[in-house]
Amino acid sequence: MILQDTIVALATPSGAGAIAILRLSGPDAITIAAEVFRSFKDKDITLVKSHTIHLGNIVENNKIFDEVLLSVFKAPNSYTGENIVEISCHGSVYIQQQIIQLLLRRGCRMANAGEFTMRAFLNGKLDLSQAEAVADLIASDNEASHQVAMQQMRGGFSNEIAKLREELLNFASLIELELDFAEEDVEFADRTQFKELLNRIVFVLKRLIDSFAVGNVIKNGIPVAIVGEPNVGKSTLLNALLNEERAIVSDIAGTTRDTIEDEIVIEGIGFRFIDTAGIRETEDVVERIGIKKTFEKITQAQVAMYLIDSYQLVNDAEQVSRLKIEIAKIKERFPLKPLIVLANKADKLSEAQKEVILEQINDIHLLSAKQNSGVAELKAQLLSFVNTGALRNNETIVTNTRHYDSLQKALEEVQKVQFGLQSDISADLMAIDIRQALYYFGEITGQVTNDELLGNIFANFCIGK
Amino acid sequence: MILQDTIVALATPSGAGAIAILRLSGPDAITIAAEVFRSFKDKDITLVKSHTIHLGNIVENNKIFDEVLLSVFKAPNSYTGENIVEISCHGSVYIQQQIIQLLLRRGCRMANAGEFTMRAFLNGKLDLSQAEAVADLIASDNEASHQVAMQQMRGGFSNEIAKLREELLNFASLIELELDFAEEDVEFADRTQFKELLNRIVFVLKRLIDSFAVGNVIKNGIPVAIVGEPNVGKSTLLNALLNEERAIVSDIAGTTRDTIEDEIVIEGIGFRFIDTAGIRETEDVVERIGIKKTFEKITQAQVAMYLIDSYQLVNDAEQVSRLKIEIAKIKERFPLKPLIVLANKADKLSEAQKEVILEQINDIHLLSAKQNSGVAELKAQLLSFVNTGALRNNETIVTNTRHYDSLQKALEEVQKVQFGLQSDISADLMAIDIRQALYYFGEITGQVTNDELLGNIFANFCIGK
Repeated sequence: MILQDTIVALATPSGAGAIAILRLSGPDAITIAAEVFRSFKDKDITLVKSHTIHLGNIVENNKIFDEVLLSVFKAPNSYTGENIVEISCHGSVYIQQQIIQLLLRRGCRMANAGEFTMRAFLNGKLDLSQAEAVADLIASDNEASHQVAMQQMRGGFSNEIAKLREELLNFASLIELELDFAEEDVEFADRTQFKELLNRIVFVLKRLIDSFAVGNVIKNGIPVAIVGEPNVGKSTLLNALLNEERAIVSDIAGTTRDTIEDEIVIEGIGFRFIDTAGIRETEDVVERIGIKKTFEKITQAQVAMYLIDSYQLVNDAEQVSRLKIEIAKIKERFPLKPLIVLANKADKLSEAQKEVILEQINDIHLLSAKQNSGVAELKAQLLSFVNTGALRNNETIVTNTRHYDSLQKALEEVQKVQFGLQSDISADLMAIDIRQALYYFGEITGQVTNDELLGNIFANFCIGK
Repeated sequence: MILQDTIVALATPSGAGAIAILRLSGPDAITIAAEVFRSFKDKDITLVKSHTIHLGNIVENNKIFDEVLLSVFKAPNSYTGENIVEISCHGSVYIQQQIIQLLLRRGCRMANAGEFTMRAFLNGKLDLSQAEAVADLIASDNEASHQVAMQQMRGGFSNEIAKLREELLNFASLIELELDFAEEDVEFADRTQFKELLNRIVFVLKRLIDSFAVGNVIKNGIPVAIVGEPNVGKSTLLNALLNEERAIVSDIAGTTRDTIEDEIVIEGIGFRFIDTAGIRETEDVVERIGIKKTFEKITQAQVAMYLIDSYQLVNDAEQVSRLKIEIAKIKERFPLKPLIVLANKADKLSEAQKEVILEQINDIHLLSAKQNSGVAELKAQLLSFVNTGALRNNETIVTNTRHYDSLQKALEEVQKVQFGLQSDISADLMAIDIRQALYYFGEITGQVTNDELLGNIFANFCIGK
């Protein structure tokens, strides 16, 4: 595909900051920039080396727009593989706009969302799953999602897929060769080796497909329902869980992130608390939680936390039996969903009182959110619901729904081939299934692609990337 | 002043974007960056040339934080005059934070607001008024404020002040020399030339001080009150005035500025409409504007626009006389404030009806906001209230309150010297006044300074600049 035009976009977040970066990419990026740039050292930027920086003014008809630093990257040694110029200007929105308008007048075109990365893909600098990882990387907001996106961007996932695809392609060639000699009844493809390969492929595909569960968790966080009556200390507990994360954020002036009060990150895994509006403490007794509302919340969650005030259980058999009934109801309705029963305000209790409660109710977890005791154990328990084995072992994890779909379809086709092999179907029918499997593999890395698919993928990028 | 430490900050706007720039400055900027950077080409960035860019990973203990571009600037050829490294990383807030934390662990310190520019000043790369212009440039949101800030940043203002200061300094030396020979009654300083110089200084100072009025307008915009009853077409008029500006903004995806619906820019001068909430059309007849509210609005404004529905005046003598009374009331209360009486919806009127209205009411301006007729004339009229002569002639304009204060004080001292010269006071008393005038000149360019002053100036900068 020939990309004749030169695109421009703001690459840094919109709004005012100290500096802003405008990025040009395309065959004319350097010549267009040269028309409007006056180097303080009278350098001709069409003649400078790649990867060099030059100080000067952006000028049109003797009107100075800004004093800027201009970085030159020459094709093919750039992000897109084309000529790239980055203009580092003062961060005024007015200046950004004026310079972009100037560049548009000089023949640039505004870049579409993700167009720089799409060009990088089309010029072979990245495969498709690597390009997709760039968007994931920018969106990553915790260690796990960052790590998975980095691994994917660096080609971990593509390499695994590409290797399987190549092996399968070899067999496909041999089988198709057999078709050419169909009347001679030869077998170029060793059926035993082929079975072995198919088993291996199925094994890897299943592992990758399974990894999507944890991948999805890493990307989107685990929804957790906290249910319980008002004033049992829900917001105190949330604050205790949030505590560490907050401290890190507030350490760094100038990089404050939007405080997401209803999400906490434990060892890189995000936990989203559902319906935080309802979680905030309320004095309104009318708002006491009904079993219906409890059920609704738990339905949306992957983990349920039932929070009570442990002090209310002391010497109150009625409360204890009421609690047991409620726990039983939840377990009956959601037999497979993890439920953590938390008895808060344990600091008010004597050791003897604590023991009674632990005896009375199975699997109850005593803690004091206020005094931060038992909170670390709760974090560990939340984390235990996530299979982070793959993450720890640095295995490839699928986080992208598109990849998941293609892997599922590839698996289906490979299983058809396996079945065909068992039932000894003809090589020509088998070849069709193998081709189809190869197609789905290729979809992931972008060896098979079309404009619509690319359009969908890159539309989700921000402009300037 | 020796600056031993190396500072780091995010230089691009906070939030997620395609890329973010982290900037390090200080003696250890390059060595600290080298510790955490692994070049893809195995380059040692402590040995590379200044103004070069390098691709690689940010790494600590084999953990890869991000794939980045690293720009190296070697002292003294950098913005601050110190070693500078700029790290262009993926724009995730998480990644920004992780890399900043890594650099803090390696011995960097978070930069204070404006600290990069303060270092540039302390290292003699900029004088103080140029440094202040950097903040103005970043804040500039229209052509006029941008032009004035650019001129100031490039030293136009400082040069003018510095020249006067030098001439005055020469005379001060001569006068002080006279003090050494006091008993011999010699005159090294030619009193006629000195008078001439003082006259010239007073002339320039007065011009600069006067320019502050337009400078202030350029920086802050002109507050305009639009008063009038509901449904006379205020929002239509605002939209008609805004129209051109809007079209420009929406042309450029990705650089959308926050729509400031109550500010329009005409030939680079901003006009702010007061109390736009009240300006929006309302169906509520109870909300009809009272004369008290009208007065309140006009008090805050530099220009008042009184908008009426011209159709309501047709064949309605009562409305006409009511309008005349209201205009008279406003003029009585604000005799010096420009008032524009606008009769909107002129498209509904016949030519004959228009003539009647123009005869009945003095200085009424007929227009149709809907059909965009008469809007250009209104813009010209608004602009006529601003003395843009200085702007057009590219003269130095004072926009900074601090400079304005120092200029006022300098003028006062110079006038004391003039007076002393007339009344033939002794050279030693005159020398004191001259020194004081020199002090105030020096305050502007930063030749005279102190930590508190610097602290105040740079605290208004953003972090990262």
